[in-house]
Amino acid sequence: MIVNPNTTAAMTDDVLAGARRAAAPGTELVGATAATGVPTVESNLDEVHGALAVAAAVQAGEAEGIDGYVVACFGDTGVAAAKELAAGPAVGMTEAALSTAALIAHRFTVVTLPPRTLHQSQRVVAHLGLIHRCTIRAIDAGVADVAAGAAAHLEAVAGAAKAALTDDGAEAVLLGCAGMAALVGPLTAILGVPVIEGVAAGVTMVEGLLRQGLTTSRHSTYARAGS
Amino acid sequence: MIVNPNTTAAMTDDVLAGARRAAAPGTELVGATAATGVPTVESNLDEVHGALAVAAAVQAGEAEGIDGYVVACFGDTGVAAAKELAAGPAVGMTEAALSTAALIAHRFTVVTLPPRTLHQSQRVVAHLGLIHRCTIRAIDAGVADVAAGAAAHLEAVAGAAKAALTDDGAEAVLLGCAGMAALVGPLTAILGVPVIEGVAAGVTMVEGLLRQGLTTSRHSTYARAGS
Amino acid sequence: MIVNPNTTAAMTDDVLAGARRAAAPGTELVGATAATGVPTVESNLDEVHGALAVAAAVQAGEAEGIDGYVVACFGDTGVAAAKELAAGPAVGMTEAALSTAALIAHRFTVVTLPPRTLHQSQRVVAHLGLIHRCTIRAIDAGVADVAAGAAAHLEAVAGAAKAALTDDGAEAVLLGCAGMAALVGPLTAILGVPVIEGVAAGVTMVEGLLRQGLTTSRHSTYARAGS
Amino acid sequence: MIVNPNTTAAMTDDVLAGARRAAAPGTELVGATAATGVPTVESNLDEVHGALAVAAAVQAGEAEGIDGYVVACFGDTGVAAAKELAAGPAVGMTEAALSTAALIAHRFTVVTLPPRTLHQSQRVVAHLGLIHRCTIRAIDAGVADVAAGAAAHLEAVAGAAKAALTDDGAEAVLLGCAGMAALVGPLTAILGVPVIEGVAAGVTMVEGLLRQGLTTSRHSTYARAGS
Amino acid sequence: MIVNPNTTAAMTDDVLAGARRAAAPGTELVGATAATGVPTVESNLDEVHGALAVAAAVQAGEAEGIDGYVVACFGDTGVAAAKELAAGPAVGMTEAALSTAALIAHRFTVVTLPPRTLHQSQRVVAHLGLIHRCTIRAIDAGVADVAAGAAAHLEAVAGAAKAALTDDGAEAVLLGCAGMAALVGPLTAILGVPVIEGVAAGVTMVEGLLRQGLTTSRHSTYARAGS
Amino acid sequence: MIVNPNTTAAMTDDVLAGARRAAAPGTELVGATAATGVPTVESNLDEVHGALAVAAAVQAGEAEGIDGYVVACFGDTGVAAAKELAAGPAVGMTEAALSTAALIAHRFTVVTLPPRTLHQSQRVVAHLGLIHRCTIRAIDAGVADVAAGAAAHLEAVAGAAKAALTDDGAEAVLLGCAGMAALVGPLTAILGVPVIEGVAAGVTMVEGLLRQGLTTSRHSTYARAGS
Repeated sequence: MIVNPNTTAAMTDDVLAGARRAAAPGTELVGATAATGVPTVESNLDEVHGALAVAAAVQAGEAEGIDGYVVACFGDTGVAAAKELAAGPAVGMTEAALSTAALIAHRFTVVTLPPRTLHQSQRVVAHLGLIHRCTIRAIDAGVADVAAGAAAHLEAVAGAAKAALTDDGAEAVLLGCAGMAALVGPLTAILGVPVIEGVAAGVTMVEGLLRQGLTTSRHSTYARAGS
Repeated sequence: MIVNPNTTAAMTDDVLAGARRAAAPGTELVGATAATGVPTVESNLDEVHGALAVAAAVQAGEAEGIDGYVVACFGDTGVAAAKELAAGPAVGMTEAALSTAALIAHRFTVVTLPPRTLHQSQRVVAHLGLIHRCTIRAIDAGVADVAAGAAAHLEAVAGAAKAALTDDGAEAVLLGCAGMAALVGPLTAILGVPVIEGVAAGVTMVEGLLRQGLTTSRHSTYARAGS
Repeated sequence: MIVNPNTTAAMTDDVLAGARRAAAPGTELVGATAATGVPTVESNLDEVHGALAVAAAVQAGEAEGIDGYVVACFGDTGVAAAKELAAGPAVGMTEAALSTAALIAHRFTVVTLPPRTLHQSQRVVAHLGLIHRCTIRAIDAGVADVAAGAAAHLEAVAGAAKAALTDDGAEAVLLGCAGMAALVGPLTAILGVPVIEGVAAGVTMVEGLLRQGLTTSRHSTYARAGS
Repeated sequence: MIVNPNTTAAMTDDVLAGARRAAAPGTELVGATAATGVPTVESNLDEVHGALAVAAAVQAGEAEGIDGYVVACFGDTGVAAAKELAAGPAVGMTEAALSTAALIAHRFTVVTLPPRTLHQSQRVVAHLGLIHRCTIRAIDAGVADVAAGAAAHLEAVAGAAKAALTDDGAEAVLLGCAGMAALVGPLTAILGVPVIEGVAAGVTMVEGLLRQGLTTSRHSTYARAGS
Repeated sequence: MIVNPNTTAAMTDDVLAGARRAAAPGTELVGATAATGVPTVESNLDEVHGALAVAAAVQAGEAEGIDGYVVACFGDTGVAAAKELAAGPAVGMTEAALSTAALIAHRFTVVTLPPRTLHQSQRVVAHLGLIHRCTIRAIDAGVADVAAGAAAHLEAVAGAAKAALTDDGAEAVLLGCAGMAALVGPLTAILGVPVIEGVAAGVTMVEGLLRQGLTTSRHSTYARAGS
Repeated sequence: MIVNPNTTAAMTDDVLAGARRAAAPGTELVGATAATGVPTVESNLDEVHGALAVAAAVQAGEAEGIDGYVVACFGDTGVAAAKELAAGPAVGMTEAALSTAALIAHRFTVVTLPPRTLHQSQRVVAHLGLIHRCTIRAIDAGVADVAAGAAAHLEAVAGAAKAALTDDGAEAVLLGCAGMAALVGPLTAILGVPVIEGVAAGVTMVEGLLRQGLTTSRHSTYARAGS
């Protein structure tokens, strides 16, 4: 299940389409759009509502027998609760994108939006310990704008990415918003370096965990509530 | 291709067997054992020979049209050269194991051997930035001993792992030697936490990269030689 | 306003009583108990509900003209949203306790509970950058137990604190749960080092910010939603 | 007591005036100017003399029954000795300013002077662990110049601060010299973000520590000499 | 013995000439050029071959009774194996240069080449923990070009160094390639700050270790193979 | 010149004797004992007086034409001022010992005294960035006791060192007090790992800097006062 923590159903559809291209034969993907909350997650308050939506979606998914989850919001809002609630693996698009980048590039950059969410990306980069290999840049656009038509922002994203390749020593680019999935192809063509979309990366990681028979440890941090 | 950087063919076979259980349907795995070099990689000098063997195996693999590589030596000896040489993805078992652990546990531990190789694990943990979430413990045994019969070392490995769960706050265990692959099942039963084997993890990651159409960035660090 | 993100009103009262002893003459303290959510915040899912309760309390407080807020939950659940929503200063008890400790001790320790919440304390310690000066220990007790009668846990808390003074080089002790406020006096007597309670610390910090005419920056991270 | 570690009495007066605006009703502030030493602290050698002056002032203050101390020199020269000598709390203006900034902004910047003292600010930023959230910039002016008339340097300070807001992601500004206290008002008006003056911040922190009944731990680092 | 891990004998001669100027009276220096491998070390694969050449040279040197070794390749390729193999001290030019810089400057910069080797310098800077005091810049030139005539690159190196002095807060410059030794004099004249050449630095450090009666610890990491 | 920042002349003599064994032929060593200040440096206040004594000794040494300085107090009290004042190199015994250890061991430990000075060692370890490779242990003894007869403390020091070899992964031992110089021989015999004495290390480093024609950068941090 791809969990979209905001109420914009069109984003869920776009993200699902991208994720399906990376999924293994036999993997069935379903999308979940937040029933309540905010249209886009762009502030600290939005993250509170987004986390609640993620938790609700996972609880519903567990009732349906979902095998694993990818949370489709850069910043990994609600992912800790998802790991706790889900019987199977639950992976955030940000941690998936960063882990993927670390395998194929020495240094890399996140291009996210809007600028006020920079700290949400920083939080995950710090959690994964990749601050020495990753810079974060933001373009001045809102999530809703990008979700409505990512192509209109291609030039801005490409500009930020090129600056990172030149000035930050970046060698790969991570798309810092689920709404940017449509830019993978055009950006790869323009930049000539790997362009990583976290939901697609997350799908392959959940698949890989399932094939290894692995899921979240229940030893302490993600123990079941009440245990 | 699973690249074993030492000359012990029996290790290649054991590792391949474990990796096949995690591979997706349709993935064909082949093993490569070092033609020259050292029987086991346990010292700084061994790592020099191991890296050369990895480079040779990848160069041979490229001639055969191999799609991707997992280097089966904890410490990721030769992995940087493999990334540079291979057209497709090349992943070390250590970076694969650590990335996997970070998705399913807040803190984790590596159990490796012999003690003199602790710094080889530390090097990869530091490269991935996971020093704040990962401890490393060693049992007092040689690689050849373990490869000859990992079961004889189950008690020692389990003891080190239990100490990490209790004292280090670890919530998952990484097997720090390709020769320990046979211990995944017994250890999982004993410990009740996820036990991660890096070669299996690496196979799923190479599969995932291939499905995403991603390979190593050629922008700078891993540019082709001469470019 | 002292914001208690859980629904246990008795905790609000205890915390308020402790905070009043540290408040300056003229400061009027009011408590807010979560109307909905969880009785105690002890898991990742609980934190999602706690954050929502914090946001609701601050939104209500803004309507009442509250000057500043202290969030009374170790781990600082919902504090980022509180900073964003409140016109005046909003401070978490964890960041307040840590900042205070750093002024009066070279190294210090947090004693929190239950063990599964260790990562919540670690998150704030890392955010403040004090990982090189602070250790975190947990006693094996639940928040509800401690809130129902902290005195019953005095021995366990003192034991953990003494271990930190001896083994970690700690020179001061931070109480890692709002429900432990009643232990400040007895622990100080037993340990002979400063014992810091975060809600009291937070009250003096909000007072200090107000007297300096300072509040949360609206420049980016905590800009008002929609701006 | 506000301890000015240099011999420029006019600086003591300016700093006192600023600090009084932030002090709580009932707090009585006195200033101490170094009797011997250097007119301004701008080098490593100056810091040695400044530290001696701080120690002398605190020893004199203890004889007078002073309740707490703020050391008014960016870089916190002599503050460790002050903590050791004083029965009550002793706080450096740098640590006070940084702790305050961390409560109201995600990232921030210090504007200090002259450039050769950058490492003095870095030392305290590193001690507090805030290197991931704080940049440091210097203007090309001497302490004496600024103390003689901070207004003449408003443009330079504002320019450095604006660069930090734009390029460093800073969201608040710390004045990196006690002689800049008069710039708080004008800079706040120009920049539209919080401007933090460390001596004022330190006064509120000492007040807060006193109200919590806290002072420096005598457990080890700051034990009384001879103990 | 000065070990040149590449097959370019002219580089060995240049490096030896520079090292002799720093050697103490009575120190006899010999050079060793790689018999097999690559003409210059500029990629990950080159490093594998360079490390093998270093190991071979040290093994030959031990047979000759060499007292100590300096490995003359920025990035310290093969130095871990050299420490393991040599009875006496073995020091890399990078660790020697960085340790020297840390004694005479608060911050410093490495100017290396070509850009794709930046991560080789970063690896040693991280190993020594000097990332907070050192930046790394690269000029766009190959090792062979520089070795053939460093003077032709003086302007480019000086430009990178000046940028570091102005923008990075650097106060000293490290030459990031053994082939740049001839630039010490001209660069010192141009820049007016210390210019550090790692092979010369390494020679004095090996001399110092020998006079202190110190060599590599055999306790674990660098224990003799088979022990 | 070996600068002893305390007034205990017997310590100067002992330190000089040890340093002479490591000095190159032709190096003439002179000792300077603090004329005023404290008998031993064991507290924050002592460090203020010690720094003043170092500055005075270097100023006197400059008048005498001294070529270089080693400051013989663990914690490197006054070394920043010494670097600023001296025309030639000035090195602290702590930075010298740590740099030396990093060349011959992967991990190492400092054994210092008394426990209240642990943070002085930590300060230099952090400044050099070696926190990931170095632990610090203290024995419960005073500097005066040790200086009066280090042999009486051999057992305690050896015990702390053995614990570090076993529990911390240390592979070499640094003596954390100038008064322990006489223990180098006996400890080496007992422990079988390198034992590093910082004053001897410092002498070889000053010699090496002089032979390379290097001294402290005057670019910014250590610029001459008034410049």
